[in-house]
Amino acid sequence: MGAEAIDRGLAYGDGLFETMRAHRGTLPWWPRHRARLTAGAGRLGITMPSDAALDAALSAALDATPNGVIKLILTRGCGGRGYAPTTGAEPTLIVTSSEGPAASVEPLAVDLLSLRLGVQPALAGMKHLNRLEQVLGAGEAAERGLDDGLMADADGFLTCSTRANLFARLDGRWITPPVDRAGVAGVARGVLLDAWSPPGGLHVMPLLMAVLPRVDALLLSNAVRGILPVGRCGAWALDPRPVGFAEARAALAASHPAFRES
Amino acid sequence: MGAEAIDRGLAYGDGLFETMRAHRGTLPWWPRHRARLTAGAGRLGITMPSDAALDAALSAALDATPNGVIKLILTRGCGGRGYAPTTGAEPTLIVTSSEGPAASVEPLAVDLLSLRLGVQPALAGMKHLNRLEQVLGAGEAAERGLDDGLMADADGFLTCSTRANLFARLDGRWITPPVDRAGVAGVARGVLLDAWSPPGGLHVMPLLMAVLPRVDALLLSNAVRGILPVGRCGAWALDPRPVGFAEARAALAASHPAFRES
Repeated sequence: MGAEAIDRGLAYGDGLFETMRAHRGTLPWWPRHRARLTAGAGRLGITMPSDAALDAALSAALDATPNGVIKLILTRGCGGRGYAPTTGAEPTLIVTSSEGPAASVEPLAVDLLSLRLGVQPALAGMKHLNRLEQVLGAGEAAERGLDDGLMADADGFLTCSTRANLFARLDGRWITPPVDRAGVAGVARGVLLDAWSPPGGLHVMPLLMAVLPRVDALLLSNAVRGILPVGRCGAWALDPRPVGFAEARAALAASHPAFRES
Repeated sequence: MGAEAIDRGLAYGDGLFETMRAHRGTLPWWPRHRARLTAGAGRLGITMPSDAALDAALSAALDATPNGVIKLILTRGCGGRGYAPTTGAEPTLIVTSSEGPAASVEPLAVDLLSLRLGVQPALAGMKHLNRLEQVLGAGEAAERGLDDGLMADADGFLTCSTRANLFARLDGRWITPPVDRAGVAGVARGVLLDAWSPPGGLHVMPLLMAVLPRVDALLLSNAVRGILPVGRCGAWALDPRPVGFAEARAALAASHPAFRES
Protein backbone atom coordinates (compact mmCIF):
# COMPACT_ATOMS: atom_id res chain seq x y z
CA MET A 1 0.00 0.00 0.00
CA GLY A 2 1.28 3.46 -0.83
CA ALA A 3 1.39 6.13 1.84
CA GLU A 4 -1.07 8.14 -0.27
CA ALA A 5 -3.70 5.48 0.46
CA ILE A 6 -3.73 6.19 4.20
CA ASP A 7 -6.67 8.31 5.24
CA ARG A 8 -5.49 11.66 6.55
CA GLY A 9 -7.77 11.19 9.51
CA LEU A 10 -5.50 8.38 10.64
CA ALA A 11 -2.22 9.84 9.39
CA TYR A 12 -2.62 13.29 10.94
CA GLY A 13 -5.92 13.43 12.82
CA ASP A 14 -6.97 15.62 9.91
CA GLY A 15 -10.70 15.65 10.52
CA LEU A 16 -13.60 16.26 12.86
CA PHE A 17 -16.16 14.27 14.78
CA GLU A 18 -19.48 14.57 16.52
CA THR A 19 -20.76 12.32 19.30
CA MET A 20 -24.53 12.42 19.60
CA ARG A 21 -27.32 10.93 21.61
CA ALA A 22 -29.79 8.72 19.75
CA HIS A 23 -33.27 8.85 21.27
CA ARG A 24 -36.22 6.91 19.86
CA GLY A 25 -34.73 7.07 16.40
CA THR A 26 -34.03 10.80 16.54
CA LEU A 27 -30.84 12.80 16.98
CA PRO A 28 -31.22 15.51 19.61
CA TRP A 29 -29.67 18.83 18.61
CA TRP A 30 -28.63 17.58 15.16
CA PRO A 31 -28.85 21.10 13.69
CA ARG A 32 -26.34 22.27 16.29
CA HIS A 33 -24.05 19.31 15.68
CA ARG A 34 -24.21 19.91 11.95
CA ALA A 35 -23.53 23.62 12.41
CA ARG A 36 -20.43 22.88 14.49
CA LEU A 37 -19.25 20.28 11.97
CA THR A 38 -19.80 22.72 9.12
CA ALA A 39 -17.93 25.48 10.94
CA GLY A 40 -15.00 23.17 11.69
CA ALA A 41 -14.88 21.90 8.12
CA GLY A 42 -14.80 25.49 6.94
CA ARG A 43 -11.92 26.36 9.26
CA LEU A 44 -9.92 23.29 8.22
CA GLY A 45 -10.85 23.50 4.54
CA ILE A 46 -12.50 20.07 4.51
CA THR A 47 -15.35 19.52 2.06
CA MET A 48 -18.68 18.94 3.79
CA PRO A 49 -20.63 15.87 2.62
CA SER A 50 -23.96 16.58 1.00
CA ASP A 51 -27.04 16.66 3.19
CA ALA A 52 -28.22 13.54 1.37
CA ALA A 53 -25.02 11.66 2.23
CA LEU A 54 -25.23 12.75 5.86
CA ASP A 55 -28.89 11.87 6.13
CA ALA A 56 -28.40 8.44 4.61
CA ALA A 57 -25.50 7.55 6.92
CA LEU A 58 -27.28 8.84 10.02
CA SER A 59 -30.56 7.13 9.14
CA ALA A 60 -28.79 3.79 8.79
CA ALA A 61 -27.14 4.26 12.17
CA LEU A 62 -30.42 5.27 13.83
CA ASP A 63 -32.12 2.23 12.33
CA ALA A 64 -29.44 0.04 13.87
CA THR A 65 -29.41 1.89 17.21
CA PRO A 66 -32.56 3.93 17.85
CA ASN A 67 -31.46 4.58 21.44
CA GLY A 68 -27.80 4.98 22.25
CA VAL A 69 -24.87 6.95 20.94
CA ILE A 70 -24.08 7.87 17.33
CA LYS A 71 -20.58 8.89 16.38
CA LEU A 72 -19.82 10.68 13.12
CA ILE A 73 -16.26 11.11 11.81
CA LEU A 74 -15.45 13.36 8.86
CA THR A 75 -11.88 13.45 7.51
CA ARG A 76 -10.18 15.24 4.66
CA GLY A 77 -9.90 11.85 2.94
CA CYS A 78 -6.93 10.20 1.30
CA GLY A 79 -4.31 11.63 -0.96
CA GLY A 80 -1.22 13.72 -0.87
CA ARG A 81 2.08 12.98 0.77
CA GLY A 82 3.10 15.25 3.55
CA TYR A 83 1.12 17.59 5.71
CA ALA A 84 -0.07 20.13 3.14
CA PRO A 85 -3.83 19.80 2.83
CA THR A 86 -4.85 18.26 -0.46
CA THR A 87 -7.47 20.25 -2.28
CA GLY A 88 -10.46 18.61 -3.82
CA ALA A 89 -9.96 15.32 -1.98
CA GLU A 90 -13.07 13.24 -1.44
CA PRO A 91 -13.81 13.49 2.29
CA THR A 92 -14.31 10.34 4.33
CA LEU A 93 -17.55 9.98 6.31
CA ILE A 94 -17.86 7.24 8.93
CA VAL A 95 -20.92 6.84 11.16
CA THR A 96 -21.03 4.28 13.95
CA SER A 97 -23.42 3.56 16.78
CA SER A 98 -23.30 1.94 20.17
CA GLU A 99 -25.48 1.27 23.18
CA GLY A 100 -25.69 3.51 26.19
CA PRO A 101 -25.35 5.76 28.01
CA ALA A 102 -26.39 4.45 31.39
CA ALA A 103 -29.67 6.01 32.44
CA SER A 104 -28.81 7.60 35.75
CA VAL A 105 -25.76 9.50 36.81
CA GLU A 106 -24.44 9.77 40.33
CA PRO A 107 -22.78 13.05 41.21
CA LEU A 108 -19.23 12.91 39.91
CA ALA A 109 -15.98 13.07 41.84
CA VAL A 110 -13.53 15.23 39.91
CA ASP A 111 -10.30 17.09 40.53
CA LEU A 112 -7.96 19.37 38.65
CA LEU A 113 -5.59 17.31 36.50
CA SER A 114 -1.89 18.02 36.43
CA LEU A 115 -1.98 17.80 32.62
CA ARG A 116 -2.54 21.20 31.00
CA LEU A 117 -4.08 21.87 27.61
CA GLY A 118 -1.91 23.59 25.02
CA VAL A 119 -3.21 26.98 23.89
CA GLN A 120 -4.05 26.85 20.18
CA PRO A 121 -6.58 29.42 18.95
CA ALA A 122 -6.43 27.97 15.42
CA LEU A 123 -7.96 24.71 16.65
CA ALA A 124 -9.91 25.80 19.73
CA GLY A 125 -13.65 25.24 19.72
CA MET A 126 -13.58 22.51 17.08
CA LYS A 127 -14.25 18.87 17.84
CA HIS A 128 -11.27 17.73 15.78
CA LEU A 129 -9.53 14.38 15.76
CA ASN A 130 -6.38 15.50 17.62
CA ARG A 131 -7.39 14.21 21.04
CA LEU A 132 -4.20 12.96 22.65
CA GLU A 133 -4.52 15.56 25.41
CA GLN A 134 -7.93 14.14 26.26
CA VAL A 135 -6.58 10.57 26.12
CA LEU A 136 -3.77 11.44 28.51
CA GLY A 137 -6.11 13.45 30.71
CA ALA A 138 -8.63 10.62 30.90
CA GLY A 139 -5.78 8.27 31.74
CA GLU A 140 -4.67 10.52 34.59
CA ALA A 141 -8.26 10.78 35.88
CA ALA A 142 -8.66 6.99 35.81
CA GLU A 143 -5.36 6.44 37.59
CA ARG A 144 -6.44 8.84 40.32
CA GLY A 145 -9.82 7.14 40.71
CA LEU A 146 -11.74 10.18 39.49
CA ASP A 147 -14.92 10.06 37.45
CA ASP A 148 -13.53 12.84 35.27
CA GLY A 149 -10.75 15.41 35.41
CA LEU A 150 -10.81 19.18 35.09
CA MET A 151 -8.29 20.63 32.66
CA ALA A 152 -6.65 24.04 32.79
CA ASP A 153 -4.78 25.44 29.82
CA ALA A 154 -1.09 26.26 29.71
CA ASP A 155 -1.85 29.76 31.00
CA GLY A 156 -3.70 28.42 34.04
CA PHE A 157 -7.27 28.99 32.93
CA LEU A 158 -9.86 26.30 33.63
CA THR A 159 -11.20 25.10 30.30
CA CYS A 160 -13.23 21.89 30.44
CA SER A 161 -13.12 18.32 31.68
CA THR A 162 -11.69 15.53 29.58
CA ARG A 163 -15.11 14.95 27.98
CA ALA A 164 -17.43 17.77 28.96
CA ASN A 165 -17.80 21.51 29.23
CA LEU A 166 -17.61 23.13 32.59
CA PHE A 167 -19.90 25.46 34.54
CA ALA A 168 -18.78 26.86 37.88
CA ARG A 169 -20.76 28.80 40.45
CA LEU A 170 -18.63 31.55 41.96
CA ASP A 171 -19.66 34.64 43.91
CA GLY A 172 -23.34 34.03 43.25
CA ARG A 173 -23.21 33.58 39.49
CA TRP A 174 -22.56 30.80 36.99
CA ILE A 175 -19.50 31.01 34.78
CA THR A 176 -18.40 28.92 31.82
CA PRO A 177 -14.97 29.46 30.26
CA PRO A 178 -14.56 30.71 26.69
CA VAL A 179 -13.36 28.12 24.17
CA ASP A 180 -11.38 30.35 21.86
CA ARG A 181 -7.91 29.32 23.06
CA ALA A 182 -8.50 25.68 24.06
CA GLY A 183 -11.44 23.33 24.53
CA VAL A 184 -14.47 22.43 22.46
CA ALA A 185 -17.61 24.49 21.83
CA GLY A 186 -19.92 21.85 23.24
CA VAL A 187 -23.40 21.48 21.85
CA ALA A 188 -25.03 21.08 25.26
CA ARG A 189 -23.03 24.13 26.37
CA GLY A 190 -24.55 26.01 23.45
CA VAL A 191 -28.07 24.99 24.47
CA LEU A 192 -27.40 26.14 28.02
CA LEU A 193 -25.96 29.46 26.88
CA ASP A 194 -29.10 30.05 24.84
CA ALA A 195 -31.72 28.79 27.27
CA TRP A 196 -30.44 28.71 30.84
CA SER A 197 -31.02 31.79 32.94
CA PRO A 198 -29.98 30.91 36.47
CA PRO A 199 -30.23 33.33 39.40
CA GLY A 200 -27.24 35.67 39.15
CA GLY A 201 -26.89 34.97 35.45
CA LEU A 202 -24.67 32.80 33.26
CA HIS A 203 -21.44 34.41 32.10
CA VAL A 204 -18.78 33.39 29.61
CA MET A 205 -15.53 34.50 31.16
CA PRO A 206 -12.03 33.23 31.90
CA LEU A 207 -11.70 31.34 35.16
CA LEU A 208 -8.25 31.00 36.65
CA MET A 209 -7.65 27.58 38.17
CA ALA A 210 -6.58 29.34 41.37
CA VAL A 211 -10.24 30.19 42.06
CA LEU A 212 -11.27 26.53 42.17
CA PRO A 213 -11.22 26.35 46.00
CA ARG A 214 -13.69 29.24 46.08
CA VAL A 215 -16.16 27.61 43.68
CA ASP A 216 -19.50 26.67 45.32
CA ALA A 217 -20.71 24.25 42.68
CA LEU A 218 -19.70 22.64 39.40
CA LEU A 219 -21.74 21.20 36.57
CA LEU A 220 -20.47 19.40 33.50
CA SER A 221 -22.32 19.16 30.20
CA ASN A 222 -22.07 17.09 27.08
CA ALA A 223 -24.36 16.19 24.23
CA VAL A 224 -24.74 12.53 25.18
CA ARG A 225 -25.45 12.86 28.89
CA GLY A 226 -26.75 16.37 29.18
CA ILE A 227 -25.93 17.82 32.59
CA LEU A 228 -23.68 15.96 34.98
CA PRO A 229 -23.76 17.06 38.63
CA VAL A 230 -20.48 17.16 40.52
CA GLY A 231 -20.44 16.12 44.18
CA ARG A 232 -16.77 16.47 44.91
CA CYS A 233 -13.80 18.37 43.53
CA GLY A 234 -10.56 17.25 45.11
CA ALA A 235 -10.85 17.76 48.85
CA TRP A 236 -14.04 19.83 48.56
CA ALA A 237 -17.55 18.42 48.80
CA LEU A 238 -19.85 20.33 46.47
CA ASP A 239 -23.63 20.59 46.44
CA PRO A 240 -24.70 18.39 43.53
CA ARG A 241 -28.06 20.16 43.33
CA PRO A 242 -26.96 23.79 43.51
CA VAL A 243 -28.93 26.97 42.84
CA GLY A 244 -29.77 26.99 39.15
CA PHE A 245 -29.42 23.24 38.62
CA ALA A 246 -33.14 22.62 38.20
CA GLU A 247 -33.36 25.44 35.66
CA ALA A 248 -30.43 24.01 33.70
CA ARG A 249 -32.06 20.59 33.53
CA ALA A 250 -35.32 22.20 32.53
CA ALA A 251 -33.59 24.14 29.75
CA LEU A 252 -32.16 20.96 28.23
CA ALA A 253 -35.41 19.04 28.69
CA ALA A 254 -37.34 21.81 26.96
CA SER A 255 -35.02 21.63 23.98
CA HIS A 256 -35.35 17.86 23.46
CA PRO A 257 -37.33 15.05 25.16
CA ALA A 258 -34.18 12.90 25.33
CA PHE A 259 -33.10 15.09 28.22
CA ARG A 260 -36.30 14.87 30.23
CA GLU A 261 -35.11 13.05 33.30
CA SER A 262 -37.46 11.31 35.64
CA MET B 1 -20.33 -0.93 13.00
CA GLY B 2 -19.97 -0.14 16.68
CA ALA B 3 -17.92 2.82 17.79
CA GLU B 4 -15.62 0.36 19.61
CA ALA B 5 -14.52 -0.95 16.20
CA ILE B 6 -12.93 2.36 15.17
CA ASP B 7 -9.18 2.37 15.55
CA ARG B 8 -8.12 4.86 18.18
CA GLY B 9 -5.52 6.15 15.74
CA LEU B 10 -8.36 7.47 13.63
CA ALA B 11 -10.73 8.37 16.46
CA TYR B 12 -8.25 10.34 18.56
CA GLY B 13 -4.89 10.38 16.78
CA ASP B 14 -3.92 7.98 19.57
CA GLY B 15 -0.67 6.71 18.12
CA LEU B 16 2.74 7.43 16.67
CA PHE B 17 4.50 7.31 13.35
CA GLU B 18 7.93 7.25 11.75
CA THR B 19 8.76 8.41 8.24
CA MET B 20 11.99 6.86 6.98
CA ARG B 21 14.21 6.83 3.95
CA ALA B 22 14.55 3.53 2.11
CA HIS B 23 17.94 3.16 0.43
CA ARG B 24 18.95 0.06 -1.50
CA GLY B 25 16.71 -2.08 0.62
CA THR B 26 17.97 -0.68 3.90
CA LEU B 27 16.47 1.73 6.42
CA PRO B 28 18.94 4.44 7.41
CA TRP B 29 18.93 5.18 11.15
CA TRP B 30 16.37 2.46 11.94
CA PRO B 31 17.79 2.00 15.46
CA ARG B 32 17.14 5.70 16.12
CA HIS B 33 13.65 5.54 14.64
CA ARG B 34 12.85 2.49 16.72
CA ALA B 35 14.23 4.14 19.86
CA ARG B 36 12.01 7.19 19.33
CA LEU B 37 9.00 4.99 18.62
CA THR B 38 9.70 2.94 21.74
CA ALA B 39 10.08 6.05 23.87
CA GLY B 40 6.83 7.51 22.54
CA ALA B 41 4.97 4.26 23.06
CA GLY B 42 6.25 4.20 26.62
CA ARG B 43 5.07 7.76 27.27
CA LEU B 44 1.62 7.06 25.78
CA GLY B 45 1.29 3.59 27.27
CA ILE B 46 0.99 1.90 23.88
CA THR B 47 2.24 -1.67 23.55
CA MET B 48 5.24 -1.96 21.23
CA PRO B 49 4.99 -4.65 18.55
CA SER B 50 7.52 -7.43 18.79
CA ASP B 51 10.77 -7.07 16.89
CA ALA B 52 9.64 -9.95 14.69
CA ALA B 53 6.42 -8.15 13.76
CA LEU B 54 8.28 -4.92 13.03
CA ASP B 55 10.93 -6.68 10.99
CA ALA B 56 8.38 -8.58 8.93
CA ALA B 57 6.35 -5.46 8.12
CA LEU B 58 9.42 -3.40 7.27
CA SER B 59 10.98 -6.14 5.16
CA ALA B 60 7.84 -6.42 3.08
CA ALA B 61 7.80 -2.67 2.54
CA LEU B 62 11.49 -2.61 1.60
CA ASP B 63 10.94 -5.46 -0.85
CA ALA B 64 8.20 -3.41 -2.50
CA THR B 65 10.15 -0.14 -2.39
CA PRO B 66 13.90 -0.60 -1.96
CA ASN B 67 14.48 3.11 -2.63
CA GLY B 68 11.94 5.65 -1.48
CA VAL B 69 10.08 6.46 1.69
CA ILE B 70 8.70 4.03 4.28
CA LYS B 71 6.03 5.17 6.69
CA LEU B 72 5.21 3.26 9.87
CA ILE B 73 2.10 3.97 11.95
CA LEU B 74 1.56 2.45 15.39
CA THR B 75 -1.73 3.05 17.19
CA ARG B 76 -3.18 1.93 20.49
CA GLY B 77 -5.60 -0.23 18.49
CA CYS B 78 -9.34 -0.60 18.79
CA GLY B 79 -11.52 -0.89 21.81
CA GLY B 80 -13.02 1.19 24.52
CA ARG B 81 -15.52 3.97 24.25
CA GLY B 82 -14.37 7.38 25.28
CA TYR B 83 -10.93 8.83 25.66
CA ALA B 84 -9.57 6.74 28.53
CA PRO B 85 -6.77 4.58 27.16
CA THR B 86 -7.71 0.94 26.99
CA THR B 87 -5.22 -1.35 28.62
CA GLY B 88 -4.07 -4.51 26.92
CA ALA B 89 -5.47 -3.53 23.53
CA GLU B 90 -3.76 -5.08 20.54
CA PRO B 91 -1.82 -2.25 18.89
CA THR B 92 -2.27 -1.58 15.19
CA LEU B 93 0.83 -1.55 12.99
CA ILE B 94 0.63 -0.18 9.44
CA VAL B 95 3.64 0.12 7.14
CA THR B 96 3.40 1.76 3.74
CA SER B 97 5.92 2.82 1.12
CA SER B 98 6.13 5.30 -1.67
CA GLU B 99 8.56 6.62 -4.25
CA GLY B 100 10.78 9.61 -3.74
CA PRO B 101 12.19 11.87 -2.54
CA ALA B 102 13.51 13.87 -5.46
CA ALA B 103 17.28 13.55 -5.67
CA SER B 104 18.40 17.15 -5.51
CA VAL B 105 17.20 19.99 -3.40
CA GLU B 106 17.36 23.64 -4.29
CA PRO B 107 17.86 26.01 -1.36
CA LEU B 108 14.48 26.59 0.23
CA ALA B 109 12.54 29.82 0.56
CA VAL B 110 10.94 29.92 4.02
CA ASP B 111 9.39 32.47 6.34
CA LEU B 112 7.97 32.58 9.83
CA LEU B 113 4.36 31.41 9.82
CA SER B 114 1.66 33.30 11.64
CA LEU B 115 0.39 30.01 13.09
CA ARG B 116 1.95 29.23 16.45
CA LEU B 117 2.44 25.82 18.01
CA GLY B 118 0.67 25.11 21.28
CA VAL B 119 2.99 24.37 24.20
CA GLN B 120 2.42 20.83 25.44
CA PRO B 121 5.32 19.23 27.32
CA ALA B 122 3.36 15.97 27.69
CA LEU B 123 3.44 15.45 23.93
CA ALA B 124 6.55 17.37 22.87
CA GLY B 125 9.32 15.43 21.20
CA MET B 126 7.10 12.56 20.07
CA LYS B 127 6.14 11.97 16.47
CA HIS B 128 2.50 11.37 17.38
CA LEU B 129 -0.54 11.35 15.14
CA ASN B 130 -1.96 14.71 16.30
CA ARG B 131 -0.66 16.76 13.40
CA LEU B 132 -3.34 19.33 12.66
CA GLU B 133 -0.94 22.14 13.54
CA GLN B 134 1.43 20.88 10.86
CA VAL B 135 -1.43 20.50 8.37
CA LEU B 136 -2.53 24.09 8.97
CA GLY B 137 1.06 25.32 8.92
CA ALA B 138 1.81 23.54 5.65
CA GLY B 139 -1.36 25.03 4.23
CA GLU B 140 -0.28 28.54 5.24
CA ALA B 141 3.19 27.95 3.75
CA ALA B 142 1.68 26.75 0.47
CA GLU B 143 -0.70 29.71 0.29
CA ARG B 144 2.22 32.08 0.75
CA GLY B 145 4.27 30.35 -1.93
CA LEU B 146 6.90 29.16 0.54
CA ASP B 147 8.79 25.88 0.30
CA ASP B 148 8.28 25.42 4.03
CA GLY B 149 7.30 27.53 7.04
CA LEU B 150 9.06 28.16 10.33
CA MET B 151 6.92 27.71 13.41
CA ALA B 152 7.25 29.46 16.74
CA ASP B 153 5.45 28.22 19.82
CA ALA B 154 2.79 30.12 21.75
CA ASP B 155 5.51 31.72 23.88
CA GLY B 156 7.35 33.05 20.85
CA PHE B 157 10.18 30.53 20.63
CA LEU B 158 11.22 29.19 17.23
CA THR B 159 10.66 25.45 17.26
CA CYS B 160 10.83 23.79 13.84
CA SER B 161 9.43 23.98 10.34
CA THR B 162 6.23 22.19 9.37
CA ARG B 163 8.24 19.07 8.48
CA ALA B 164 11.81 19.49 9.68
CA ASN B 165 13.99 20.49 12.58
CA LEU B 166 15.70 23.81 12.54
CA PHE B 167 19.31 24.92 12.90
CA ALA B 168 20.16 28.62 12.97
CA ARG B 169 23.55 30.31 12.83
CA LEU B 170 23.60 33.29 15.18
CA ASP B 171 26.57 35.22 16.59
CA GLY B 172 29.06 32.74 15.17
CA ARG B 173 27.50 29.53 16.48
CA TRP B 174 24.84 27.06 15.45
CA ILE B 175 21.73 26.72 17.59
CA THR B 176 18.87 24.23 17.47
CA PRO B 177 15.84 24.70 19.72
CA PRO B 178 14.94 22.23 22.45
CA VAL B 179 11.91 20.03 21.76
CA ASP B 180 10.61 19.59 25.29
CA ARG B 181 7.67 22.03 25.01
CA ALA B 182 6.73 21.67 21.34
CA GLY B 183 8.15 20.04 18.22
CA VAL B 184 9.53 16.63 17.39
CA ALA B 185 12.87 15.12 18.38
CA GLY B 186 13.95 14.53 14.80
CA VAL B 187 16.15 11.58 13.98
CA ALA B 188 18.40 13.55 11.63
CA ARG B 189 18.59 16.23 14.34
CA GLY B 190 19.79 13.52 16.72
CA VAL B 191 22.49 12.42 14.28
CA LEU B 192 23.65 16.01 13.90
CA LEU B 193 23.70 16.58 17.65
CA ASP B 194 25.87 13.50 18.03
CA ALA B 195 28.19 13.96 15.06
CA TRP B 196 28.27 17.57 13.83
CA SER B 197 30.92 19.84 15.32
CA PRO B 198 30.77 23.06 13.37
CA PRO B 199 33.08 26.01 14.04
CA GLY B 200 31.67 27.84 17.08
CA GLY B 201 29.88 24.71 18.21
CA LEU B 202 26.31 23.39 18.08
CA HIS B 203 24.09 24.39 20.99
CA VAL B 204 20.61 23.32 22.08
CA MET B 205 19.00 26.48 23.38
CA PRO B 206 15.78 28.46 23.11
CA LEU B 207 15.66 30.87 20.21
CA LEU B 208 13.16 33.70 20.39
CA MET B 209 11.52 34.41 17.06
CA ALA B 210 12.53 38.05 17.47
CA VAL B 211 16.15 37.09 16.69
CA LEU B 212 15.26 35.76 13.24
CA PRO B 213 16.37 38.95 11.42
CA ARG B 214 19.80 38.54 13.03
CA VAL B 215 20.26 34.94 11.91
CA ASP B 216 23.06 34.46 9.32
CA ALA B 217 22.04 31.07 8.05
CA LEU B 218 19.37 28.39 8.47
CA LEU B 219 19.43 24.67 7.85
CA LEU B 220 16.53 22.25 8.09
CA SER B 221 16.86 18.54 8.72
CA ASN B 222 14.66 15.51 8.43
CA ALA B 223 15.15 11.78 8.18
CA VAL B 224 14.04 11.48 4.58
CA ARG B 225 15.96 14.33 3.00
CA GLY B 226 18.81 14.83 5.42
CA ILE B 227 19.95 18.45 5.39
CA LEU B 228 17.98 21.07 3.51
CA PRO B 229 19.75 24.37 2.82
CA VAL B 230 17.73 27.58 3.14
CA GLY B 231 18.39 30.40 0.67
CA ARG B 232 15.80 32.88 1.84
CA CYS B 233 13.85 33.63 4.99
CA GLY B 234 11.19 36.23 4.40
CA ALA B 235 12.88 39.37 3.10
CA TRP B 236 16.38 38.10 3.92
CA ALA B 237 18.65 36.26 1.50
CA LEU B 238 20.68 33.68 3.40
CA ASP B 239 23.88 31.90 2.42
CA PRO B 240 22.74 28.38 1.47
CA ARG B 241 26.28 27.03 1.98
CA PRO B 242 27.20 28.63 5.29
CA VAL B 243 30.08 27.92 7.61
CA GLY B 244 29.59 24.43 8.98
CA PHE B 245 27.34 23.20 6.18
CA ALA B 246 29.93 20.90 4.65
CA GLU B 247 30.64 19.36 8.04
CA ALA B 248 26.94 18.79 8.64
CA ARG B 249 26.57 16.98 5.33
CA ALA B 250 29.67 14.97 6.07
CA ALA B 251 28.30 13.97 9.47
CA LEU B 252 25.11 12.58 7.92
CA ALA B 253 26.98 10.91 5.07
CA ALA B 254 29.32 9.22 7.52
CA SER B 255 26.38 7.82 9.44
CA HIS B 256 24.69 6.25 6.38
CA PRO B 257 25.49 6.03 2.64
CA ALA B 258 21.95 7.15 1.77
CA PHE B 259 23.04 10.65 2.70
CA ARG B 260 26.20 10.74 0.62
CA GLU B 261 25.38 13.45 -1.86
CA SER B 262 27.25 13.81 -5.10
